[in-house]
Amino acid sequence: MTRTLPSGLSATAEVAASSANLGPGFDSLGLALSLYDEITVETADSGLVIEVDGEGAGQVPLDASHLVVRAIERGLRENGVAASGLIVRCRNNIPHSRGLGSSAAAVVGGLAAANGLAAQGDSTPMSADRLVQVSSEFEGHPDNAAAAVLGGAVVAWTAKQDGAPRYAAAPIRLHPGISVFAAIPQVRSSTAETRVLLPEQVSHADAGFNLSRAALLVVALTERPDLLLDATEDVLHQPQRASAMPASAEYLAVLRRCGVAGVLSGAGPSVLALSTEPELPADALEYGARAGFSVVKMSVGHGVSWTSGVAASARREQ
Amino acid sequence: MTRTLPSGLSATAEVAASSANLGPGFDSLGLALSLYDEITVETADSGLVIEVDGEGAGQVPLDASHLVVRAIERGLRENGVAASGLIVRCRNNIPHSRGLGSSAAAVVGGLAAANGLAAQGDSTPMSADRLVQVSSEFEGHPDNAAAAVLGGAVVAWTAKQDGAPRYAAAPIRLHPGISVFAAIPQVRSSTAETRVLLPEQVSHADAGFNLSRAALLVVALTERPDLLLDATEDVLHQPQRASAMPASAEYLAVLRRCGVAGVLSGAGPSVLALSTEPELPADALEYGARAGFSVVKMSVGHGVSWTSGVAASARREQ
Repeated sequence: MTRTLPSGLSATAEVAASSANLGPGFDSLGLALSLYDEITVETADSGLVIEVDGEGAGQVPLDASHLVVRAIERGLRENGVAASGLIVRCRNNIPHSRGLGSSAAAVVGGLAAANGLAAQGDSTPMSADRLVQVSSEFEGHPDNAAAAVLGGAVVAWTAKQDGAPRYAAAPIRLHPGISVFAAIPQVRSSTAETRVLLPEQVSHADAGFNLSRAALLVVALTERPDLLLDATEDVLHQPQRASAMPASAEYLAVLRRCGVAGVLSGAGPSVLALSTEPELPADALEYGARAGFSVVKMSVGHGVSWTSGVAASARREQ
Repeated sequence: MTRTLPSGLSATAEVAASSANLGPGFDSLGLALSLYDEITVETADSGLVIEVDGEGAGQVPLDASHLVVRAIERGLRENGVAASGLIVRCRNNIPHSRGLGSSAAAVVGGLAAANGLAAQGDSTPMSADRLVQVSSEFEGHPDNAAAAVLGGAVVAWTAKQDGAPRYAAAPIRLHPGISVFAAIPQVRSSTAETRVLLPEQVSHADAGFNLSRAALLVVALTERPDLLLDATEDVLHQPQRASAMPASAEYLAVLRRCGVAGVLSGAGPSVLALSTEPELPADALEYGARAGFSVVKMSVGHGVSWTSGVAASARREQ
């Protein structure tokens, strides 16, 4: 029973960048970062117009294959509504292909914008749990998506239910004594975009190694920042990616030699530093500058938010 | 610079049973249980006398190979002291070979008793960190040992330092809404004593599965008991042990069908149930009774404690 929304409705979503894995927490731990994309969608009588400002402008397809549009369409279907036409405006601040969750942000932002439209059609918007589920289905893993939906730090997991993946996440409270820095390569790395093949098999000992650190990382992030260095050790994906992104691998080593918990952000090439000090050590800043990383102190990002109303274009016609 | 302690000193240690692994937290998560062994040691002029009451009486060797004696000797060496003779009395309440950490308790209790003796020789007793390290060296894994040392729930991990394992642990606060039940087979199972061979290799996906659940389990144990069922899923050791202890495997299944987070205690055959209800469901109690399990509601155990003084035998001589 799909109802078609009238034209002239508008909704805007703000959605955070995110860092996944956080070292040992492969496909599970995530952290939203204070770097936001803004997605505005308006219903129209027909057609599809997409405008992209900022990151990705001129590089992403401006048609129905655009990830934000696919997410909006999926979100409308989830809410039992449809639109005859859409005008989508993306103001992108999250760099693409750097391991900062831009695709999760596109999906979560699109779904949230659809929530904003559907709310005006008297639909009950998708819950946060449902947003995690649907956005993770797009992503294939829940860590970025859950961080973008819930904000802050999350533990996400994947279960099987009737043969299909069921995605879920629990928020955890980041200790206020932890400072977060993102080191973002200024140029998009083509090797980093190559999907690094992780081994299909790992030793039982390595599995045990990472699970102990993932458990410890929850303790470190919430209560014991002094344990961050031990807690961010990983043997399941970072060493395997090192040769594809040597500058990032070296940055991790530099940070850790300085006593700062450095991890790849997602699949890299960005590096995330979790520190108990308010600033990074000089050695780490110096390496970042020399190796072409833009090093930015981040706050923790908030969960996706959306507002809705009458489209500016419709208001002008009134 | 080993100093020999005078005869007639006495020390008593009380040390808790423990449950390791807790499902996904293989060799990492541990929980001390309110079931205690008591070890009393006295210095003597010569010789070695060992008395064992309770569990293990008549079954363990009463010579220098006795695990408690080895731990006491090691503890004295750690403290830079020695004894010409020892009288050791063990009052054992922790069942042996059931996955309840009796060997970790023997080691931690022996080390703690040595601390109690050494304190009277003006030595600084081993710290909790040192107790975790030394006891884990005996065990080969730190989860039971750390729980016995620190009490409560712990996340333990193993690092390499100069080629040797460095063991460490962090305590976590168990949520007060969690009730703990131990289901202990009344007979010692010979198949359970057989060391089950875990696979040397596991899939990357299974490694990822367990690390997400181990991280989630820290969240569930401390903040979100409602997530215990998802958080205690494991694919790295429990399924592999099932055929060696079918009654325990079936008990896990019964508990989980009732919505209660059942896990093997350590390597089994005991089963631990973590519940958000103050009592177990009737089905779970009924299965336990039928399958020969003694089901006991537990409190969380405290960390190892020791007291020291003049031996009762020496006092009588004064």
